[in-house]
Amino acid sequence: MHNSLKHNWRYTMTTSPESEHPIKAYGYAARDTSGSLSPLTFSRRATGEKDVRFKVLYCGICHSDLHLIKNDWGFTKYPVTPGHEIVGVVTEVGSKVEKFKIGEIVGVGYLVGSCRSCQNCVSDYEQYCPTYVSTSGFTYFDGTQTYGGYSDHMVSDEHFVLRWPENLPLDAGAPLLCAGITTYSPLRYYGLDKPGMKVGVVGLGGLGHVAVKMAKAFGAEVTVFSTSTAKKQEAIEGLKADHFINSKDEQQMQAARGTLDGFIDTVSAIHPISPLLSTLTTNGKLILLGIPEKPLELSAASLVLGRKTVAGSNVGGIKETQEMLDFAAEHGITADVEVIPIDYVNTAMERLLKSDVKYRFVIDVANSLKAE
Amino acid sequence: MHNSLKHNWRYTMTTSPESEHPIKAYGYAARDTSGSLSPLTFSRRATGEKDVRFKVLYCGICHSDLHLIKNDWGFTKYPVTPGHEIVGVVTEVGSKVEKFKIGEIVGVGYLVGSCRSCQNCVSDYEQYCPTYVSTSGFTYFDGTQTYGGYSDHMVSDEHFVLRWPENLPLDAGAPLLCAGITTYSPLRYYGLDKPGMKVGVVGLGGLGHVAVKMAKAFGAEVTVFSTSTAKKQEAIEGLKADHFINSKDEQQMQAARGTLDGFIDTVSAIHPISPLLSTLTTNGKLILLGIPEKPLELSAASLVLGRKTVAGSNVGGIKETQEMLDFAAEHGITADVEVIPIDYVNTAMERLLKSDVKYRFVIDVANSLKAE
Repeated sequence: MHNSLKHNWRYTMTTSPESEHPIKAYGYAARDTSGSLSPLTFSRRATGEKDVRFKVLYCGICHSDLHLIKNDWGFTKYPVTPGHEIVGVVTEVGSKVEKFKIGEIVGVGYLVGSCRSCQNCVSDYEQYCPTYVSTSGFTYFDGTQTYGGYSDHMVSDEHFVLRWPENLPLDAGAPLLCAGITTYSPLRYYGLDKPGMKVGVVGLGGLGHVAVKMAKAFGAEVTVFSTSTAKKQEAIEGLKADHFINSKDEQQMQAARGTLDGFIDTVSAIHPISPLLSTLTTNGKLILLGIPEKPLELSAASLVLGRKTVAGSNVGGIKETQEMLDFAAEHGITADVEVIPIDYVNTAMERLLKSDVKYRFVIDVANSLKAE
Repeated sequence: MHNSLKHNWRYTMTTSPESEHPIKAYGYAARDTSGSLSPLTFSRRATGEKDVRFKVLYCGICHSDLHLIKNDWGFTKYPVTPGHEIVGVVTEVGSKVEKFKIGEIVGVGYLVGSCRSCQNCVSDYEQYCPTYVSTSGFTYFDGTQTYGGYSDHMVSDEHFVLRWPENLPLDAGAPLLCAGITTYSPLRYYGLDKPGMKVGVVGLGGLGHVAVKMAKAFGAEVTVFSTSTAKKQEAIEGLKADHFINSKDEQQMQAARGTLDGFIDTVSAIHPISPLLSTLTTNGKLILLGIPEKPLELSAASLVLGRKTVAGSNVGGIKETQEMLDFAAEHGITADVEVIPIDYVNTAMERLLKSDVKYRFVIDVANSLKAE
């Protein structure tokens, strides 16, 4: 998930991260709002009967990791180990685990827990469960903090563990566990997955570049909207988008009026949405994935006079995430990644802040994280 | 339609309203931005081969009539004769008219023309046709102004004429042609028409009171939201709403968090929508029918974190309007009306401005409009 404003106040540290659980773990953590990441020894629970334990191989760096380690949302408890785009190999399974065996490749994304009984959970929308537990920086049901994938190993209830498709690369596939499902889910839920649909993608970063690939795989005619003309070549040649529009160019925007069936808007900064709504056809949908710090300006006329929609979407449920991974494998979709060793992570965060990556950093955890 | 910001600049008066067409007509019109209505002799076209001519019996007063006669939207051409909730009796039909006969009761609503060939028109969404022609204050395809139902008779292409169901009252049914379809259409289109759904209605005026009746007829559990506690009794006892919430009461709003499937929001003034979005359940929809003068504040988080929707809707197409009239007749739905003679219309407009009507004025045209 690239963004979370979900507060999670249940955490109270009663023992140290290193001793609260029986199994020693090792990773990188931020200790304060500087967000600087350094090695941390902590602990993870023993393998419960429904738990899957796995060695982490790769972990993507999502923009929300940056918010989490700097406490931008105001609920970070330090030390915090980020990472929720995690691919690994199973090392142990609980006695009642049915879906996984030792040696299999698996993934864990943004979720490691939910109530499993509310209407959202039973509808496979665990991401909207009021008590969902995210993979890092949240409080698990036992009262301890969740530590993410910038670490040597993970343990999770099998419900939240994904089967890794055979031909999906482990490094470039890892970001799909957040960026992939976050863009796939709204394309499906809002009906923008029909061949021939005209889909706009706003912003060309970690989420946006995957959105282009997903929409293309559904058979859409894709237009990338960006304020940076420099992205045109990337969009058209690199990502095979059909069209590019500089959203600051009024002539280009005017020419596109009333033409698109929907937008996947990945921008987290404040931005004007009326010009995007004008670009939609009757019944068109603008789907927001980002959460700007301040409210956006919404002209009711721009919705009423064309029966248009502004809506939101947040990652996706576990069942749908599995479906997305299988879809990605089938269509050869991965993220464009820069694979880095874990001791590069602080530099990577600085570069991410400047959008200086095409388009996702992935940490080669297994080959670079060594217990000291 | 209670609101229109659709500009319509094609009008150029080449001859006088009285002589531009061969058939003399008579009605009430505003001459300037005072909006004061007084008798006007004008003219209507001869009955074309697809035209239906009818004597006006009743015409509802929609709040948008008030905007039109005062030029609140900036495109009014004077003289203007308002009225788009019109019930009448057929007096003449063109040679190729198939649906209607002399003596039948018919209705005309917000639309009297559209291109009939664009994607919207062929999908029966004439209301979103870029060149739709509204019943009053717009320019028809022959270049002349459209004059509405505050007049002795009307002429319209049969496509835009509705069959009047046998057991639907003519006076109290007239407002359904705008207020009815404007609320029925979004309930249907946005899937809020399933029995047992929890539907909120915001604002209890001309549109809101019909929205309550429509939603109840679909089997919804209806909650009226209003800033005026005085409306509670009206809502519960008068309109058979299930619940009432004072939207300024934080405790009541807090208690309702996450409970509603959708809102029909009829408020045209600036109002906060975040509290309404909080009241929606996951996947809930806030449907705006009003067009406040300034943008609303939209918190992206309130959409993203529960996959919620803000959308709009504007009247309805002809096919759906017929379906709505038949549905209303079947379920005994009419507007709550105060029937007035046409010489009361200026007083009625003053009272409407103060929301001093429960809930719709309807002009008894046939019994009160006499040619001088």
